[in-house]
Amino acid sequence: MPDVRTAEVIAVGTELLLGETHDTNSAELAGSLAALGVDVYWSQRVGDNLERVREALERALGRSDLVVLTGGLGPTDDDLTRDAVACVLGETATVDPALEAWLRERFAAFRRDMPERNLRQAERIPSAEALPNPIGTAPGWLVRVHRDGRDLTVVTLPGPPREMRRMWHHEAVPRLSFGGGALYARTFKTLGVGESDVAVRLGDLTAGANPSVATYAKRDGVHVRVAAKGIDADDARRRAVAVEADVGDLLGDSVWGHDDDTLAELAVAALQRRGATLAVAEVASGGALADLLSDVTGAEGTLGGAVIAWGPETMATLGVATDLLARLPASAAEAVAALATSVRALFDVDYGVAVGPAFPHAGDGADDVSGPDRNESAATRVVIAIAAPGGTTVRPLTFPPLGRAWLRERLAFTSLFLLRSSLS
Amino acid sequence: MPDVRTAEVIAVGTELLLGETHDTNSAELAGSLAALGVDVYWSQRVGDNLERVREALERALGRSDLVVLTGGLGPTDDDLTRDAVACVLGETATVDPALEAWLRERFAAFRRDMPERNLRQAERIPSAEALPNPIGTAPGWLVRVHRDGRDLTVVTLPGPPREMRRMWHHEAVPRLSFGGGALYARTFKTLGVGESDVAVRLGDLTAGANPSVATYAKRDGVHVRVAAKGIDADDARRRAVAVEADVGDLLGDSVWGHDDDTLAELAVAALQRRGATLAVAEVASGGALADLLSDVTGAEGTLGGAVIAWGPETMATLGVATDLLARLPASAAEAVAALATSVRALFDVDYGVAVGPAFPHAGDGADDVSGPDRNESAATRVVIAIAAPGGTTVRPLTFPPLGRAWLRERLAFTSLFLLRSSLS
Repeated sequence: MPDVRTAEVIAVGTELLLGETHDTNSAELAGSLAALGVDVYWSQRVGDNLERVREALERALGRSDLVVLTGGLGPTDDDLTRDAVACVLGETATVDPALEAWLRERFAAFRRDMPERNLRQAERIPSAEALPNPIGTAPGWLVRVHRDGRDLTVVTLPGPPREMRRMWHHEAVPRLSFGGGALYARTFKTLGVGESDVAVRLGDLTAGANPSVATYAKRDGVHVRVAAKGIDADDARRRAVAVEADVGDLLGDSVWGHDDDTLAELAVAALQRRGATLAVAEVASGGALADLLSDVTGAEGTLGGAVIAWGPETMATLGVATDLLARLPASAAEAVAALATSVRALFDVDYGVAVGPAFPHAGDGADDVSGPDRNESAATRVVIAIAAPGGTTVRPLTFPPLGRAWLRERLAFTSLFLLRSSLS
Repeated sequence: MPDVRTAEVIAVGTELLLGETHDTNSAELAGSLAALGVDVYWSQRVGDNLERVREALERALGRSDLVVLTGGLGPTDDDLTRDAVACVLGETATVDPALEAWLRERFAAFRRDMPERNLRQAERIPSAEALPNPIGTAPGWLVRVHRDGRDLTVVTLPGPPREMRRMWHHEAVPRLSFGGGALYARTFKTLGVGESDVAVRLGDLTAGANPSVATYAKRDGVHVRVAAKGIDADDARRRAVAVEADVGDLLGDSVWGHDDDTLAELAVAALQRRGATLAVAEVASGGALADLLSDVTGAEGTLGGAVIAWGPETMATLGVATDLLARLPASAAEAVAALATSVRALFDVDYGVAVGPAFPHAGDGADDVSGPDRNESAATRVVIAIAAPGGTTVRPLTFPPLGRAWLRERLAFTSLFLLRSSLS
């Protein structure tokens, strides 16, 4: 079986083209292919039009060893991926009795009649191997093609991300051979420095090609990715090692994690190492912090409760003195500290984190732990307080005015960053 | 100035291709172009490679009136979009003194020295008009091209979505002419019916081309989009009117809103019409409901507070009787009703909504208001209760096991759907 060295993804669907549905499949497949050492230079999106899907596939086969098409495998007349592949390969699709039996069984299990048009999903061209889809009704195809002296492969996958993901990893990848080397990648995740400051610290390192060093501004801070290609996994790692160490040194304390780490998981793990419990009170972050914590598996015993206050009255309900609330924003540090202490007592936990209300701020943002890399007029001031067994710490922070949704999320990540720092 | 009838987007950047950064620009631009009556049949993504960007642009100019490139306008050697455009058009880019002055001023305003490599961003080819970028350092280009008897336009936009969006709407669109008709679109948003049930209800309507009817499974339910093209806005609307009415009738009560409506905004508006206030208690939704409510502008006076309980102990802290908690899940309906009543009293509001804990459920999901369209083994059972001035209603619901994050979000949307129904 020939090795796949170059691949390209074609996402099929007018709804993707028009932004009605976000195409996350292309990027996910490309990322997976890159990790398998395959070069991905192109990606196409085309609408539900036979001629254009056909043309995109022809072009892709002319320049890539493997072409993965996602979407267009449904039962309707708009689902044209099967037809386009059949047309390009000069074959005719007919109903495969085994696929038909599987499909009818599947509908029977739902206690539903199978509409006759669903029979399209049981079609197969002679040279296609069917890829099973136990979580949907659209099987995929894997077709090996010999063209102009080249050995090529076409894979079709369903559009729904869960079905696509399962079929790719469990059905398609095991049937392919990737001998083109391997990619090693390590991502450093930082908070508290802007992207341009990270770039300054990294200097010439970002100019290298192998290993490559790239920065990305993400929801939870700036990520720095070191990636190297090698003839195998060991070789790729070896090529990255020196640069990876340099990047770690240059970023220093601002690094909070790597790769798949999340701030919420690390904060919960730090609490669990101490056998400590947590409760949170949120004003300006409006539930975003609780939402991140809720995502951590196995955190139930560590997390007490959370309270979201949408106004000063609610802060009073939680036990913050009304004279403190009357003197906001001047009394913000004291009031938010009181909120952290109150929520710690209410839920009887070891640590109480409070995110205070947002107030306009006309300063220069120099003490912003969140490191925004932007220049806008009115900044926002928010106090975050952590009530711990040893006392309460208060941190006033300044954020750029990038909207409520952005602020809520950034406050949630910043709180976790501060909590984790205070625990280590 | 010639009218733009067909357009295509090229997103430039290796990080987009590899999924390191999600390409949201392509879909956003394509949606905007569709609304302007422009046909978008293709979309390409290419890495930071001069030859491949050049090739993608050549191909696009051969088939589309307008080509919009996003990304690759930064100061580094990897930012090749300017070079690719210059190369395809056979022109040489030189530093534009006006752009250079603007750029140096911009850095001075940050009190930072301009690295000499940023001078690349002040370059322009003779036939390009510069598009100002007041919120970044990369100006765009608008280039009019006459080729093979066709009048074509190339637009370059920066990669960061905020800069891209501003430049597209405020700088590029006003300089272009879109005479190719207009698109009218109306989206119906539903909850409580699965996508296949929606398809059954709509029947043959989804087979039409103009107006077209399409369904999309979204985070807040199934959306149905009716779209029509016409010679102008009135004509497009006229073509859609009959089908739009039919779709509305067929979907009936399951429709909760249209177009840009959000469930949280509609629920808050319904509360405000009654002068009523709201508090929420969340167990299985873990803050997702509070997060949605926090996103509503002007809701401060309507929203009291929210409590997230991560375990039964916290439900006890909030006042749910311990004997009820001891008999969970059998006592779920009573316990969640008590939670709704407690949170209503705690924050002294008119309505208390409680989302209970999640328990495994082996039923057939027939009473699932959330309408999942999937077949999986173990379903999840969650009770939602609404404590209102006239009494407390309890709704036991079944959800498919699609993961914690999915469940949290779906519970939040379902709670708002039920609250809004109970208010109307």
